[in-house]
Amino acid sequence: MKKPEDYRKELKIYNSLTGTKEIFTPLVPGHVGMYVCGPTVYNHVHLGNVRTFVSFDVIYRYFKHLGFKVRYVRNITDAGHLEDDSDEDKISKKARLEKTEPMEIVQKYTVDFHRILDKMNNLPPSIEPTATGHIIEQIEATKAILEKGLAYEVNGSVYFDVIKYNKEVDRYGKLSGRKIEELIARTRELEGQEEKRNPQDFALWKRAKPQHIMRWPSPWGEGFPGWHLECTVMSTKYLGEQFDIHGGGMDLKFPHHECEIAQGKALSGKDPVRYWMHANMLTMNGKKMSKSTGNTLLPEEIFSGNNDKLTKAYSPAVVRFFFLMAQYRNVLDLSEEALESAEKGLKRLWEAYGKIDKIPQTGRDGFDVEKWRDSLYEAMNDDFNTPVTLARMFEGAKAVNKITSGEGGLSHESKALLKKTFKEFMFDIFGLPESRIEGEENKNLDGVIRVLIALRNEARKQKNWELSDKIRDELAALGIKLKDGKEGTEYEIQ
Amino acid sequence: MKKPEDYRKELKIYNSLTGTKEIFTPLVPGHVGMYVCGPTVYNHVHLGNVRTFVSFDVIYRYFKHLGFKVRYVRNITDAGHLEDDSDEDKISKKARLEKTEPMEIVQKYTVDFHRILDKMNNLPPSIEPTATGHIIEQIEATKAILEKGLAYEVNGSVYFDVIKYNKEVDRYGKLSGRKIEELIARTRELEGQEEKRNPQDFALWKRAKPQHIMRWPSPWGEGFPGWHLECTVMSTKYLGEQFDIHGGGMDLKFPHHECEIAQGKALSGKDPVRYWMHANMLTMNGKKMSKSTGNTLLPEEIFSGNNDKLTKAYSPAVVRFFFLMAQYRNVLDLSEEALESAEKGLKRLWEAYGKIDKIPQTGRDGFDVEKWRDSLYEAMNDDFNTPVTLARMFEGAKAVNKITSGEGGLSHESKALLKKTFKEFMFDIFGLPESRIEGEENKNLDGVIRVLIALRNEARKQKNWELSDKIRDELAALGIKLKDGKEGTEYEIQ
Repeated sequence: MKKPEDYRKELKIYNSLTGTKEIFTPLVPGHVGMYVCGPTVYNHVHLGNVRTFVSFDVIYRYFKHLGFKVRYVRNITDAGHLEDDSDEDKISKKARLEKTEPMEIVQKYTVDFHRILDKMNNLPPSIEPTATGHIIEQIEATKAILEKGLAYEVNGSVYFDVIKYNKEVDRYGKLSGRKIEELIARTRELEGQEEKRNPQDFALWKRAKPQHIMRWPSPWGEGFPGWHLECTVMSTKYLGEQFDIHGGGMDLKFPHHECEIAQGKALSGKDPVRYWMHANMLTMNGKKMSKSTGNTLLPEEIFSGNNDKLTKAYSPAVVRFFFLMAQYRNVLDLSEEALESAEKGLKRLWEAYGKIDKIPQTGRDGFDVEKWRDSLYEAMNDDFNTPVTLARMFEGAKAVNKITSGEGGLSHESKALLKKTFKEFMFDIFGLPESRIEGEENKNLDGVIRVLIALRNEARKQKNWELSDKIRDELAALGIKLKDGKEGTEYEIQ
Repeated sequence: MKKPEDYRKELKIYNSLTGTKEIFTPLVPGHVGMYVCGPTVYNHVHLGNVRTFVSFDVIYRYFKHLGFKVRYVRNITDAGHLEDDSDEDKISKKARLEKTEPMEIVQKYTVDFHRILDKMNNLPPSIEPTATGHIIEQIEATKAILEKGLAYEVNGSVYFDVIKYNKEVDRYGKLSGRKIEELIARTRELEGQEEKRNPQDFALWKRAKPQHIMRWPSPWGEGFPGWHLECTVMSTKYLGEQFDIHGGGMDLKFPHHECEIAQGKALSGKDPVRYWMHANMLTMNGKKMSKSTGNTLLPEEIFSGNNDKLTKAYSPAVVRFFFLMAQYRNVLDLSEEALESAEKGLKRLWEAYGKIDKIPQTGRDGFDVEKWRDSLYEAMNDDFNTPVTLARMFEGAKAVNKITSGEGGLSHESKALLKKTFKEFMFDIFGLPESRIEGEENKNLDGVIRVLIALRNEARKQKNWELSDKIRDELAALGIKLKDGKEGTEYEIQ
């Protein structure tokens, strides 16, 4: 039987840089270095970002499952993320509006971000560096790019010279497929850009205006680092000047990731990233999610049901399952129907997993478990194709249902492999929670419901229909639905 | 009726600097600036530290309850905490032993620390700065102290000149009550100290040896900041060069806090802190907790019951209650008996709170609620005396029990005030969880248990003792104990 490690060499990743699916070959055999752009902590994390972070969590989990030693770095942007081309960064602006210290904004939304991702059952990354934790490294990188003649200082700000880079080092635009001539032709003049030689140039270091609170001393006076440089500095500090995977939302491809390539290559002469991966958008009811049109939902609003878009609450596990229903690089549309279908799908897998123990042990297999298991790895190896993997998981669930309804059985080994495979894909790789209700009290609840089911069975045996109906109805009133089947009575919490 | 704000001016705090209880007068009326030394994230947080952080959480909550606008800063030490006087900091050492990147150690134990404090129901501080996020500020402060002539550079390290400070600026030792002459007389020479002019001098900046990973460029070459300076820089950056309260464990009084006073005064000419507060030790079974003697328990080991010191698991709520049983500045001893007593005490308060709604409404009060409420504030205002406050909460619980057993009643207003006071002290100030079992499933469990209680009552009415005993016994087997009383049947989860 193949071990997870044996599937490694067939893993293909769609590389945004080349536009093709490529066999994944890590720089250092057995190791993966992965960087994903984290949130700018000036507001509640929005659901589209949560989708991105869940997508990369599944990718991280799959690498780990395949036995790679993964260093997964995801940053926190707590400084320097400019509002368009203004002189104020997003966190400072929010702090000014809320009349508070920027680091209080950072703390509030970092705590919020971690809580949401914990609820989604995401694993924490290996390192979670902050921009403010790497100001010195950003100053050093700015100095180095200046020394190479690929940046220039104006009035205490330092800008990257895109035209010169494009001419002397490498094509600017190779990730996003943009041509610099077209970029220049299309750009309108924006306020605050008069310092730049070209509108495409971007800030490595920005002079702080007198009222700007987040500021640090530098060779060019007091200021703060540019957003693009932050990711270059943090990814290469912890993963090396060239590393395996860089991920992020599709919206970051240009200009953020394009700038990272330029900065990285300017600094080391090498392309910093070998595989660029971009997670696609989440839409809602067929339209772009957007605060201004009101077509938006916060994660907590879904979990609590406290919103005017959906008829009921959906748990983080259901939302996670829903995210898996599309491949990370396709658009996914959120709707009541899609969440309901996710809820049903999740329940089907949980139920099938729960029934595996009841499969009769026979000499002859009614289902080819090894072949089925191969097909799951095949789907995941095809650029982490979670919807195809899920479809094949459902085939497994169907087989379990068929066998436990009395058609055949499985050998001892096949049954064990079936259970192990369900467990690994559902919990280790997809990161779904192992029990429907978390924690200690779950055991209590399950126990108490089973006492009632036993009393009801007793009542039915004694043809005490009044009592048996009463138990069923009172549980139903609590949202606990009893289901009588061949295997006995099971329940569902609604 | 007095509002919480009305109790503010009677708040007394034991100031470690003066050794007396003083009326608390904030620098800016209505505002409190509070700094507490956080963990060095190189290992699992130990239970004594958890006690300290819970103590300051209650203090933070009480200030907020009194209507102060509080900025509570608690740092994360992720660099520079030297092992004694060696050249290696704690995190770098652990990273070397575990053959990993220091920031992976930092991430692992920061996540662990936050999980434990979340379980303890601590509020996150307003700002949680890191040492690595303030390297520049530490370099700037070192430069400033050098310029004042109160530090000297040797071989790329910079040391604070304690003797000179003591002579020219202020007495070194005024917090811990030590005399510099005695300190000097008592000190033996330690390895790696030969650079210092005096053994009492401490590092503001430390040159990094070639193998040291955590290093930053500075005017004195590559190195890392000293641990004491970190807290000076972060507290004054966010709270001003003088601020209201500085807290931490008793073990930090000397030399850490003594050095903070010297650094702060060297920098600004002012005493940085107006009220120094020190939380005392947690012992276990009468002895110092210590890894080397095995007399130690991790928080998770208590919550899970997975240890050889206690006979069962105790929830984070019980541990929190246990911490409240001593005033923060007294030694507290952990034992099975103390935890059992905390468990009982917590249950008594929860039960009393649950019964308040059943108090009969009468014209005449059987219990002076306002006087009792005053007595709670009086106890908290006496340097946050939680054990006395708890004792008075129990008097309130006793009154509730007496009244609901049929002796008198309360007016509508008194009943409302009683409930509000219980709620505010138990949940807002002490930070105990509002329900015995957290979350949505709690409602389900409660509902299902009540269905069983109703069935049992029905059975008892019909004198079906077999069924009624069966229900009682099966619930007991699940750890759910039924208690028949005048008010009907209640349950307890054990």
